[in-house]
Amino acid sequence: MRIPKHIGIIPDGNRRWALSKGYEKKDGYESGLPVGLELFKICKELGIKEITYYGFTVDNAKRPKEQRLAFTKACVDAVEMISKEDADLLVLGNDKSKVFPKELSPYTERRTFGNGGIKVNFLVNYSWEWDLGLSDKIPQPLKSSDVSRVDLVVRWGGRKRLSGFLPIQTVYSDFYFIDDYWPDFKKQHILDALEWYNHQDITLGG
Amino acid sequence: MRIPKHIGIIPDGNRRWALSKGYEKKDGYESGLPVGLELFKICKELGIKEITYYGFTVDNAKRPKEQRLAFTKACVDAVEMISKEDADLLVLGNDKSKVFPKELSPYTERRTFGNGGIKVNFLVNYSWEWDLGLSDKIPQPLKSSDVSRVDLVVRWGGRKRLSGFLPIQTVYSDFYFIDDYWPDFKKQHILDALEWYNHQDITLGG
Repeated sequence: MRIPKHIGIIPDGNRRWALSKGYEKKDGYESGLPVGLELFKICKELGIKEITYYGFTVDNAKRPKEQRLAFTKACVDAVEMISKEDADLLVLGNDKSKVFPKELSPYTERRTFGNGGIKVNFLVNYSWEWDLGLSDKIPQPLKSSDVSRVDLVVRWGGRKRLSGFLPIQTVYSDFYFIDDYWPDFKKQHILDALEWYNHQDITLGG
Repeated sequence: MRIPKHIGIIPDGNRRWALSKGYEKKDGYESGLPVGLELFKICKELGIKEITYYGFTVDNAKRPKEQRLAFTKACVDAVEMISKEDADLLVLGNDKSKVFPKELSPYTERRTFGNGGIKVNFLVNYSWEWDLGLSDKIPQPLKSSDVSRVDLVVRWGGRKRLSGFLPIQTVYSDFYFIDDYWPDFKKQHILDALEWYNHQDITLGG
């Protein structure tokens, strides 16, 4: 089986999941944590070399404050959780903004935790405009230059779009969309995605 | 019904269509021409303001010469065909390369044909690296700065990826994928895509 080297994860649908359970929107985010760790462990076991989680974006941070605080806390908790595993961890996003959580500043350069062995990138207060530096006066490398080409993007929550996720690394990615909300993650989702990916040809535009 | 302003068209599957009919790969491209015109007319009637067709890319141009000549001719024919309609037409791509067809040089600045009224962009010898100018020494606007944000990308041929199609304009696009090969285009494909799009929420990352 041909396993992707790098999987991009768009864990969407937390708020809709919360509403469907009778909770408030803000209460959906923490429910994504255990499944995020489960996904990490599955990927590690399968020999995937790199995972990027779409945490939150500069655009997301304009949502109501109680939601922003909730998804920020979920991201901090998620990064701290992965830091207890064997991983080469990087938090990537605009850390000069006041909405970037200070707790994550120590992670903005890649560091190995435990025995490392899998690159894990967490996009936190990320924005594609920031990444590309389209408004920078002097050309400079992508802010995400330490993030590899993404082979497979998997998005939960039924929407079929990238929503600004790493536009350069995803130019040739295959996209797999799952209707279930992210907190309803099941191992079978990722196995189905990999099975599907295994049958795609890879041309890289050629 | 909420109609997208700008639709991106990835007309994939020409070679597989040709093989399925017992033709040579190179013979698939011309079959995409009449359906491309049909699609243009449908979009115009529906009030869509802009269409971008993914013609061929710098990567595609590395394919065997007989294929390159065939898809280049199909692009030239397609542009000349649209130029007989009412359209504001632009051909966008690296026109300094020797594989860029000279016949299309007059179209590399947007011009109005007939009564105009719909922007039609044709990507010919396009490349996302060229568009973004990532290797340029002085920052400059996108080469595609006259191409608007794409609301909906429709891809024929069963693959679920962008293959380098306008990475900046598609950051928030919704994606609709059709298994049929492009030469098997039917009006119902685009009606189904628009019906689906009508039920998507638009958040632009918010």
